[in-house]
Amino acid sequence: MPATPYLRVDLARLRRNIARVAEFADGAGLALRPHVKTHKTVEIARLQLAAGAVGISVATIGEAETFARNGIGDVFVAYPLWLDDTAAGRLTDLTGDAAVAIGVDSVEGAANAGRLLGATTVEALVEIDCGHHRSGVLPRDAGKVALAAVRTGLQVRGVFTFPGHSYAAGALASAAADEAAALREAAASLREAGVEPHVVSGGSTPSLAHSDPSVLTELRPGVYVFGDAQQWELGAMPPDSLALTCSASVVSHAGGRLVLDAGSKVLGADRPAYASGFGRLPEHPDARIVMLSEHHAVVDLAGASLPPLGSRVDVVPNHVCNAVNLVDTVYAEESGELRPWSVTARGLNS
Amino acid sequence: MPATPYLRVDLARLRRNIARVAEFADGAGLALRPHVKTHKTVEIARLQLAAGAVGISVATIGEAETFARNGIGDVFVAYPLWLDDTAAGRLTDLTGDAAVAIGVDSVEGAANAGRLLGATTVEALVEIDCGHHRSGVLPRDAGKVALAAVRTGLQVRGVFTFPGHSYAAGALASAAADEAAALREAAASLREAGVEPHVVSGGSTPSLAHSDPSVLTELRPGVYVFGDAQQWELGAMPPDSLALTCSASVVSHAGGRLVLDAGSKVLGADRPAYASGFGRLPEHPDARIVMLSEHHAVVDLAGASLPPLGSRVDVVPNHVCNAVNLVDTVYAEESGELRPWSVTARGLNS
Repeated sequence: MPATPYLRVDLARLRRNIARVAEFADGAGLALRPHVKTHKTVEIARLQLAAGAVGISVATIGEAETFARNGIGDVFVAYPLWLDDTAAGRLTDLTGDAAVAIGVDSVEGAANAGRLLGATTVEALVEIDCGHHRSGVLPRDAGKVALAAVRTGLQVRGVFTFPGHSYAAGALASAAADEAAALREAAASLREAGVEPHVVSGGSTPSLAHSDPSVLTELRPGVYVFGDAQQWELGAMPPDSLALTCSASVVSHAGGRLVLDAGSKVLGADRPAYASGFGRLPEHPDARIVMLSEHHAVVDLAGASLPPLGSRVDVVPNHVCNAVNLVDTVYAEESGELRPWSVTARGLNS
Repeated sequence: MPATPYLRVDLARLRRNIARVAEFADGAGLALRPHVKTHKTVEIARLQLAAGAVGISVATIGEAETFARNGIGDVFVAYPLWLDDTAAGRLTDLTGDAAVAIGVDSVEGAANAGRLLGATTVEALVEIDCGHHRSGVLPRDAGKVALAAVRTGLQVRGVFTFPGHSYAAGALASAAADEAAALREAAASLREAGVEPHVVSGGSTPSLAHSDPSVLTELRPGVYVFGDAQQWELGAMPPDSLALTCSASVVSHAGGRLVLDAGSKVLGADRPAYASGFGRLPEHPDARIVMLSEHHAVVDLAGASLPPLGSRVDVVPNHVCNAVNLVDTVYAEESGELRPWSVTARGLNS
């Protein structure tokens, strides 16, 4: 057994999560292009492809390179990249290994991308803001951005959005409704500009079940492979589906509380307003991590008796994408055996 | 220039921060044993030793191994380790390279450590809680823990604490006062138990200037080498002393706001209650990062005009220890030249 703290993947649950979402997408007649930023692990991307995914979504060119060079032949950088010569050269090189597409969210960004990539096979999708208010143009301006791309020789595949405002209590269905309305308007805007939106792409793990197949053609959820405490607390995934846990050791009973050796350097420091703490303990559903520092989680056990010093306790991180990005290896468990999987794209922020 | 986002160290500021705290400790007659979890970088530990540090503090055995095997001859694992045979073996092996000490914070932990290490040169310090309420025994119980160690053959070096409750608005001086009172009581408790506390160790970057040299013999600050937005906002370090910034690119002007490519996967997701946002922009002191996701920082510029798409903007992370632990390399800048430094102990959580 590895020394604690380490991240363990329940392979049976992982396979079930992958199958469940693949079947959902298939049943709805939607293509599935999972976001692999969550796991950054080639073995897991292969399981997703084997279950029917049409390709993958990534956030950075470094992630695209890792997966394309490990045999994943269809990669969409779902991010409004601002390209320079180096970045454009890396993307162009990648087209030898994979079908490559990128996001653009402004007329200037599209024109810049077209200038650098217009002579290549790299395609573009226009990002729109459906209510998350992060990046993306307004839906009604999507046609203008598409036109700027087309005019510089860049093939436009369609439109995409991320309904990230689904990450709030009670917002799962309403965020999906916002997503559908915005994508419908954006697709119309492209058609008015004379650009056919072949792909209309959305999806987030919390809003997934509410996705509108009359508007969308593609889903890009990421977190669903593992789930995490955020999905649990949002009601988007039940605790018995969560496939990644941090195995931690009890190091102290200071103050009559449970102190574990899993801190923000293995769980991540995410603590959104709707979260009830810094992570959850599946074996102690009433417990809360009330304090988190780099190598300590202080747990209020809600009156339960303290597990002994030196014993092991599982923790589900709040945000699994950031937890996985802290380790070079996750351990896949099946039938009691642990197999190390390299988090190959860890830390590839550019 | 590396692709953004990357972490850049201002070498002149780093050297000034190292010299300033070394001079402070020297002037107060205190030993300085900086916590290297902040930088995890051998080059920086060497600068600290060259400036007079007596040794280093680390949080994990993996960090201890990295630094001891790179020539740092005096390492204190400032953490209440719960040892098993493997961990004890790793510590024993290390005693060939360095003087090694560990923390204990319970009678059981001390007895367990003594059973496994009593025949080695590894020493112990008793951790006490001075008001942070994380790990550590009550000061009055320190003697009992020391005695449990001594009885199993473990040499006790003294007592230590971390006044982490200094991380709150207006708490810098009061946390240092709590620290002094608790360490005084703990040292007396050891003496009553017949154990001489040769080392009485404390210190945090925010409370450093208020440390009481009539009680303490040693200081263990970590963050002071770089500083971060937390230190800036706590009033512990001025913005012109901050030595680590994330170089980010402007990727979007969506919604009329500044969107940068630096997210929680390079800045960390830390956002304590007293912080005004998810990081700060030194060139725009009134700006705030109002939203942070894995690869986006959305900035409210407080009315300033938007830097152009594709331009570079510096960001100071909230918590520099977690930011550095996300990258394999930091870039040390001097006279306009960038030198890559390996974050050798990155990710070593055990």
